[in-house]
Amino acid sequence: MKFYKNRLSIFIFLTSIILFVFNSKIAAQGNKQMVRMAKLVIDSSQLEKYKAALKEQMESALIAEPGVLLYNAVYEKENQTHITILEVYASDSAYMAHRQTPHFKKYKDATKDMVKSLELIDVVPIGMGSKLK
Amino acid sequence: MKFYKNRLSIFIFLTSIILFVFNSKIAAQGNKQMVRMAKLVIDSSQLEKYKAALKEQMESALIAEPGVLLYNAVYEKENQTHITILEVYASDSAYMAHRQTPHFKKYKDATKDMVKSLELIDVVPIGMGSKLK
Repeated sequence: MKFYKNRLSIFIFLTSIILFVFNSKIAAQGNKQMVRMAKLVIDSSQLEKYKAALKEQMESALIAEPGVLLYNAVYEKENQTHITILEVYASDSAYMAHRQTPHFKKYKDATKDMVKSLELIDVVPIGMGSKLK
Repeated sequence: MKFYKNRLSIFIFLTSIILFVFNSKIAAQGNKQMVRMAKLVIDSSQLEKYKAALKEQMESALIAEPGVLLYNAVYEKENQTHITILEVYASDSAYMAHRQTPHFKKYKDATKDMVKSLELIDVVPIGMGSKLK
């Protein structure tokens, strides 16, 4: 009986450790969203092609990747080649995984000669709320 | 009988015109969302107060105003006084109504000495998608 009791104690102890580590990891991921603003200037002669490629990439990523949480991409009315994209990923690793997807690689390759400049700015949300469908 | 037939024709004709005008108005409003990016620089000594006031304003507007559709506000990690807000209103008139609300007036008054610069940029969405709750 003592033998079984010891085995049970060890089992409970190990399970507790595993659950603790696992929950800490989830909690850490929950607080570690990666939020970024990308500012791009696009070659004006390829602007329509660029916007189509970006749109396709964003739609594919939002559908296929659970770790891609938000894309808001806009161009400026008075400076139509100036594009801003707000991006939210569930974690750094979700972002790293995103960069390896076929749709991201296709976008990156297709647009490499369209992008005149790209600035990536790490940002922190103050408030994010949407009633858009 | 001819009299009634004529009256019926006039009724149908007038109803058609009213429905046409009404539908055109709805369609036009549907395409006339007002989308804007605000770029602000805040006095560093009042940054926390500013962020709290902005957050309160955004939350009140999203709850109280059907015409306020989206607010995404972020600050830059490396330049924490630099704030960008993406705003979507259902129409120009929804935006004008927003500016008259008590919560907006309170925010504008409370923050007038905190904002060092404010740039408003009209933008056009390329793609907007979110899985955030």
